[in-house]
Amino acid sequence: MRGGIDLGGTKIQAVVVDDEHTVLGETRVPTPTDGGPGDVAAAMAGALGQAAEAAEVQPADLEGVGVGSPGDVDASAGTVTSARNLPDWEGTFALGDELSRALGTRVALGNDVQVATDAEALLGAGKPYRSLLGVFWGTGVGGGIVLDGRPWVGRGAAGEIGHVVVKRGGARCTCGRKGCMEAYAGRGSMELRARARHKRGAKTDLFHIMRDRGRDRLTSGVWARALDRDDPLATELMDDAVAALGAGVASVQNVLDVEAIVIGGGLGIRLGERYAERILDAMMPHLFVDGDPPAVSVAALGDLGGAIGAALLVADAA
Amino acid sequence: MRGGIDLGGTKIQAVVVDDEHTVLGETRVPTPTDGGPGDVAAAMAGALGQAAEAAEVQPADLEGVGVGSPGDVDASAGTVTSARNLPDWEGTFALGDELSRALGTRVALGNDVQVATDAEALLGAGKPYRSLLGVFWGTGVGGGIVLDGRPWVGRGAAGEIGHVVVKRGGARCTCGRKGCMEAYAGRGSMELRARARHKRGAKTDLFHIMRDRGRDRLTSGVWARALDRDDPLATELMDDAVAALGAGVASVQNVLDVEAIVIGGGLGIRLGERYAERILDAMMPHLFVDGDPPAVSVAALGDLGGAIGAALLVADAA
Repeated sequence: MRGGIDLGGTKIQAVVVDDEHTVLGETRVPTPTDGGPGDVAAAMAGALGQAAEAAEVQPADLEGVGVGSPGDVDASAGTVTSARNLPDWEGTFALGDELSRALGTRVALGNDVQVATDAEALLGAGKPYRSLLGVFWGTGVGGGIVLDGRPWVGRGAAGEIGHVVVKRGGARCTCGRKGCMEAYAGRGSMELRARARHKRGAKTDLFHIMRDRGRDRLTSGVWARALDRDDPLATELMDDAVAALGAGVASVQNVLDVEAIVIGGGLGIRLGERYAERILDAMMPHLFVDGDPPAVSVAALGDLGGAIGAALLVADAA
Repeated sequence: MRGGIDLGGTKIQAVVVDDEHTVLGETRVPTPTDGGPGDVAAAMAGALGQAAEAAEVQPADLEGVGVGSPGDVDASAGTVTSARNLPDWEGTFALGDELSRALGTRVALGNDVQVATDAEALLGAGKPYRSLLGVFWGTGVGGGIVLDGRPWVGRGAAGEIGHVVVKRGGARCTCGRKGCMEAYAGRGSMELRARARHKRGAKTDLFHIMRDRGRDRLTSGVWARALDRDDPLATELMDDAVAALGAGVASVQNVLDVEAIVIGGGLGIRLGERYAERILDAMMPHLFVDGDPPAVSVAALGDLGGAIGAALLVADAA
């Protein structure tokens, strides 16, 4: 048995899987918003402990635990640097050692988006294909690449599809640059636009729904509910997001010409197949070879893909 | 000794090389603008014959001849389909067999941009690197990809970087789509814009220079001359082209994270290192990892890269 932890900006998802990658136990806890890397590591160890309990195993008896992390991951050093969505994590933190001590087993680190892509490629929607692009549509838009059955990570920073330029001189992105796909399609940017428009008097139920659900941010569930109600502002911003995804993902496809595109992430999974189809429709006008578009589908492992993919790191390291 | 032919929309470049890839003979002839694929094949055989003569060898004594071709190349069938820049070449033509008969030696076909990229990777500016992007900046903007020392061609259509979208809803591209990088940076699109602006009264020397040189199109040399003279329209359109290349190539780099970018093609080679630097400068604001930009340089094999790369196909096939 192996453990897997998907470390996200809002939640920590932990699983324990068997050798066939079947999930035997799982938990989900909120990511600490205060404190620092040590607190985040403690919450991760706690989540993995609960998943292990559900699987009726001691963490120390696991073959190992894999972690999919945001930020700059140095797998061989076991460190994570500048994970900006996490509290006080600008510097370098020895997450591997810290977790390994807490759990009593060895820990392998990987990039969150890449492990989720590897999981979809090996076990999920990408199974029939040798080449694929994973599009993780959530707070930002991340990308994972598999070419000829192997991950392509470049010099360590490949797959930053959220920062493909879809409009030169366009909207300011949360990264500080202009016209990035994420500036239109990332949930973070979408919320900033929704708040600004609402302030200027645009009518929307988005913030009522948010408060009704006891949230302080526009989660994927809030967006989905507002879209179900045909909320005009939500619909307008989502149309713009889908158009940006269409142009940006088509651009990537014109470069890579992969067999399949798998759409995951909080928004991608919450909005499901209908939106995967909308994204493909939005890609079509920009695909250079439009007679043979790639297969586009929703991540089959859903929210658990990141944690299951993280557990794959243990097998890789073994 | 081997032969190589680079089949372009305006010229056919032929070389004969030895086993160390040294060019022993070369010729360049205009591509026929009338007739059909048979006439183009005859012109190619003629060019190779002249290059062989310069190298003091009979074509039939060559180990083989490689061809870099536009259009859809089926290397195993030896055919080229819908080479749209060539006369009456919408359908499928058995270029391999036809040339093989005319030359008395075996013929291997490959994609023009990919063979030029392979040549730069193996023998040119890309030699120190394991991963690179070739940017062929001419009538259009083509791209060739080498990852981990091997060409990446996708399902056969990878590297269409000219059709990366740099401005959603932007200028109409010669491909019919909107906002492609090539719509701003391709010499074909630049000429259409220059003609339209000139017609509407914009002052420019571009067309004087063109006529002085006995041309009917704005060649790379014409652009270079006008830029040397600080022609305002040429400068404006070129600034726009460089900005589009910056955004588009940076987008590709954000996805691939390669070690090096090699800039070739008619305009790329004619404008040289200064413009390679300008393109890198224009990329910087859009690079997600801007602390470690890729090396950017001009194709070291110059105009001969395509033909030398084509000759490499013979070694590959052997």
